[in-house]
Amino acid sequence: MANSKYEYVREFEQTDLLLPNTWIVVRIDGRGFHKLSTKYAFEKPNDRSALDLMNAAAVSVMKEFPDVILGYGDSDEYSFIFHKSTSLFQRRASKLSTTITSTFTAHYVYLWPTYFPMKPLSPPLPSFDGRCVLYPTTKDLRNYLAWRQADCHINNLYNTIFHTLVLRGNLSPQEAEAALSTTTASAKNEMLFQGFGINYNNEPEMYRKGSVVYRAYELAPVGVPVSGNLNPDDDDGAERASLSKTAAEKEKKIRSKARIAVEHVDIIKDDFWERRPWILSGKS
Amino acid sequence: MANSKYEYVREFEQTDLLLPNTWIVVRIDGRGFHKLSTKYAFEKPNDRSALDLMNAAAVSVMKEFPDVILGYGDSDEYSFIFHKSTSLFQRRASKLSTTITSTFTAHYVYLWPTYFPMKPLSPPLPSFDGRCVLYPTTKDLRNYLAWRQADCHINNLYNTIFHTLVLRGNLSPQEAEAALSTTTASAKNEMLFQGFGINYNNEPEMYRKGSVVYRAYELAPVGVPVSGNLNPDDDDGAERASLSKTAAEKEKKIRSKARIAVEHVDIIKDDFWERRPWILSGKS
Amino acid sequence: MANSKYEYVREFEQTDLLLPNTWIVVRIDGRGFHKLSTKYAFEKPNDRSALDLMNAAAVSVMKEFPDVILGYGDSDEYSFIFHKSTSLFQRRASKLSTTITSTFTAHYVYLWPTYFPMKPLSPPLPSFDGRCVLYPTTKDLRNYLAWRQADCHINNLYNTIFHTLVLRGNLSPQEAEAALSTTTASAKNEMLFQGFGINYNNEPEMYRKGSVVYRAYELAPVGVPVSGNLNPDDDDGAERASLSKTAAEKEKKIRSKARIAVEHVDIIKDDFWERRPWILSGKS
Amino acid sequence: MANSKYEYVREFEQTDLLLPNTWIVVRIDGRGFHKLSTKYAFEKPNDRSALDLMNAAAVSVMKEFPDVILGYGDSDEYSFIFHKSTSLFQRRASKLSTTITSTFTAHYVYLWPTYFPMKPLSPPLPSFDGRCVLYPTTKDLRNYLAWRQADCHINNLYNTIFHTLVLRGNLSPQEAEAALSTTTASAKNEMLFQGFGINYNNEPEMYRKGSVVYRAYELAPVGVPVSGNLNPDDDDGAERASLSKTAAEKEKKIRSKARIAVEHVDIIKDDFWERRPWILSGKS
Repeated sequence: MANSKYEYVREFEQTDLLLPNTWIVVRIDGRGFHKLSTKYAFEKPNDRSALDLMNAAAVSVMKEFPDVILGYGDSDEYSFIFHKSTSLFQRRASKLSTTITSTFTAHYVYLWPTYFPMKPLSPPLPSFDGRCVLYPTTKDLRNYLAWRQADCHINNLYNTIFHTLVLRGNLSPQEAEAALSTTTASAKNEMLFQGFGINYNNEPEMYRKGSVVYRAYELAPVGVPVSGNLNPDDDDGAERASLSKTAAEKEKKIRSKARIAVEHVDIIKDDFWERRPWILSGKS
Repeated sequence: MANSKYEYVREFEQTDLLLPNTWIVVRIDGRGFHKLSTKYAFEKPNDRSALDLMNAAAVSVMKEFPDVILGYGDSDEYSFIFHKSTSLFQRRASKLSTTITSTFTAHYVYLWPTYFPMKPLSPPLPSFDGRCVLYPTTKDLRNYLAWRQADCHINNLYNTIFHTLVLRGNLSPQEAEAALSTTTASAKNEMLFQGFGINYNNEPEMYRKGSVVYRAYELAPVGVPVSGNLNPDDDDGAERASLSKTAAEKEKKIRSKARIAVEHVDIIKDDFWERRPWILSGKS
Repeated sequence: MANSKYEYVREFEQTDLLLPNTWIVVRIDGRGFHKLSTKYAFEKPNDRSALDLMNAAAVSVMKEFPDVILGYGDSDEYSFIFHKSTSLFQRRASKLSTTITSTFTAHYVYLWPTYFPMKPLSPPLPSFDGRCVLYPTTKDLRNYLAWRQADCHINNLYNTIFHTLVLRGNLSPQEAEAALSTTTASAKNEMLFQGFGINYNNEPEMYRKGSVVYRAYELAPVGVPVSGNLNPDDDDGAERASLSKTAAEKEKKIRSKARIAVEHVDIIKDDFWERRPWILSGKS
Repeated sequence: MANSKYEYVREFEQTDLLLPNTWIVVRIDGRGFHKLSTKYAFEKPNDRSALDLMNAAAVSVMKEFPDVILGYGDSDEYSFIFHKSTSLFQRRASKLSTTITSTFTAHYVYLWPTYFPMKPLSPPLPSFDGRCVLYPTTKDLRNYLAWRQADCHINNLYNTIFHTLVLRGNLSPQEAEAALSTTTASAKNEMLFQGFGINYNNEPEMYRKGSVVYRAYELAPVGVPVSGNLNPDDDDGAERASLSKTAAEKEKKIRSKARIAVEHVDIIKDDFWERRPWILSGKS
């Protein structure tokens, strides 16, 4: 039963190498998590255990993939950033997206009982989809992350007041939706404060800012702008590509031993990046 | 904190719609399963529980995705076939590959304790990668499946004799490898039979043929060739595309209720397909 | 001045191999031909010389590329069909589209003085864009060509009556447009006949049907349906792929010597294809 | 003859939008120019008229496409650079590559009699293929151009001595090839000088450096480094994207009126770029 007569079918596989020297984002999203959150009675507007589980799975992904330099997550989504110099899986798009999604899923399901000991899983199980997005410049990458964090804020503010109106204001979901349909952010803040004594800024940072996951080394001093902070990348495309194999292996090892920090901090402004210059430089 | 100034980053997402009217194969592969099989002491050359777990996860994928018409697996890989008329996820490649890979992974990890009650999982966890491959014709698709089944046979024959030589013939792995390096299939069969009294054809079909997973309806009578069996597809591209939404929903429902069969049979010859015409016709 | 330090830039070139065993259409379109037709005072609704020039350029493309099995053109566009078994340029999309577009353009400009001896070209020159489109089945391919020929008919009927209303009916272009905005095909036919004594079906076939360009061998007898006419392709993917190099070269030679026919005939119905079975079989 | 039943075939066209905020290179190459150079008896190692014709066609491309910021050519190839902020043709790869290739071809054929009045063209005509390549950073783009210019130098040095050995040294082509097979650049220089009194550095710059085509405005003063010369791009991705339509139109007009310079100068070092800051800034 020689296999040669069938092997021509391999030619139908198409290459999908991602453009070199660009930042790779793999963003994964929970599939049908609205339904899932009902099935397992997640607390509204935020379920602490569910978010902790997402973060724990993200930390596991970072541990298994030293090439991931940062993760950012909120709600049922997570973005994982690969340095633009990465050559993991020869930058094959499908390999990167499926591997990250699968690893995240494995840990999510594996860790579920730890975070929801009283709520055993049953099919259909939680799952995720994923995709690769490329950003050519550090600025574009940071704007991507700013977009996700601003989105987290917008959604959380909305959800916080919506559920307050329903749970404590005795509005129906429809009434609450109508009440919020045209209000500005500041009007929402006011509504929360005047109506319910809630200062939105005192809400947990985890809910307002999402979660940032990265390798923790010693912080750089405050206020010392990193040279070319906003675009440290343009200069080193070729250099990093030619980083010796030994050096690359060594860096990988250092990274794989680093502690993974999970924080709920602003990543839109410069401060976060200036004090952690190793994240964007790709040098651990 | 308006989000609009960052939203331009969405334009960097690129579309990856798969060519219409072509068969879609999503093939997933275990990552680092050689190491995994050592860690969990899988039996060689075949670990029945590990294969049963793969099949159980595949059945779960079929249940969650009525659009999958057939799965074929052996060792640590599985191929899932979508009918060429599918419009699931608008045929977006990354969505299809990541969702299938994630769902499979979720069930694999979830079901692990059922199949390995004495071997609890620990990180790094099992995970899979995946990719989409397109086949324009039924013939190409069947040749793809034939390629995988022939590959299963070739590998299993090799592994069977290799492990027999090591375990019962007291050869070192290197000696066994050397002994097998140039032998033909028939010489291998002979070696098994003469040396160890093993008739390869009596080995379990699951190991020799792999596993086919599909929806089981009533078999068609033997020997009645389905009209255009080898290429029933060319004629109905447009027609199926224009299948009314109601009809499509109805078909989906029928499919999602069908029993999923797991069999270890030949899918290279015509018989399997002729007796199960609904698989390639896409009509349940 | 060693070049090696710069050569890494080659890695940014991305492969774009088209899926094997699918029909390739390269369709080219005139850029800004509305303006061009004014500049060179093309006759309305059809300029015979302009169409003859398009056809002459298409014939030249067919002569230079034996792999092109058929061309179909109308107005300022032309579609060139490569057999699904072609391996020209390893099926690289950009190579195929740019080469065909460039060759067509070269001949269009070169032959211009022959067809417009009194209207010398001046910059900006006529140019074309092009793209590759894949069709997995013969049926899809024939429907593509039917789409173009039906489009030719629809546009030509509209243009014929529009220009008749303007030139002979003394309507302004706006009035003519308004008059035609809701009329059906049959109403348009009637309007032409009643108002101006024009029987649309007596208009030149070249204008009503466009132009088909193909290699002319001896026609098959009428009414003998070619076996599997509508889907002769499913069966021979692998076989043709494995056509020996010598045989392929020989076929190419036969094809490159064949006379190129330019006809204005129906290619929507089966007759054209049944009597010229070599076109879709790819066997000259 | 409604067209609707065929229109589904449009869904088979696939989008090919190039990643935003990356430099686009369209490189075109002469097809079979080795044969062509024999047919029309081009002078060896360089035919001045043939190169002038290439440059004239390139200038025409720049005139018709204000979005092209620079062209670089040598031998039978030309690279055209689009600013990373361009949105021409929505950045569709096939549209960009075919249009540039077609326009270049049109002018090449049209201008041929001007440069070769005694050598009328005959089929097969000169034609070109083309492709798009993306570069994420200015540095990568400049390295691409450096690669092409270094390649020009290497080839020209080789061809100069090869043809000198054949024409004046009475070596056969095979002997000349053998003599050159292992020589370094400096040995080649020496060979030219000692053997034939030729100082390679006195050869025409057009042959040694190729041709740069760009819009000529007033040069910036020498030695004043442009801020961020090597990476002026990272900062303005979003800004330029949001350039108002009116402003963009105005810039386009300014550019389309500029004189096109054709020069044979070094573009590997910084000087060229520092004195012409408008090229990479995209601001005319």
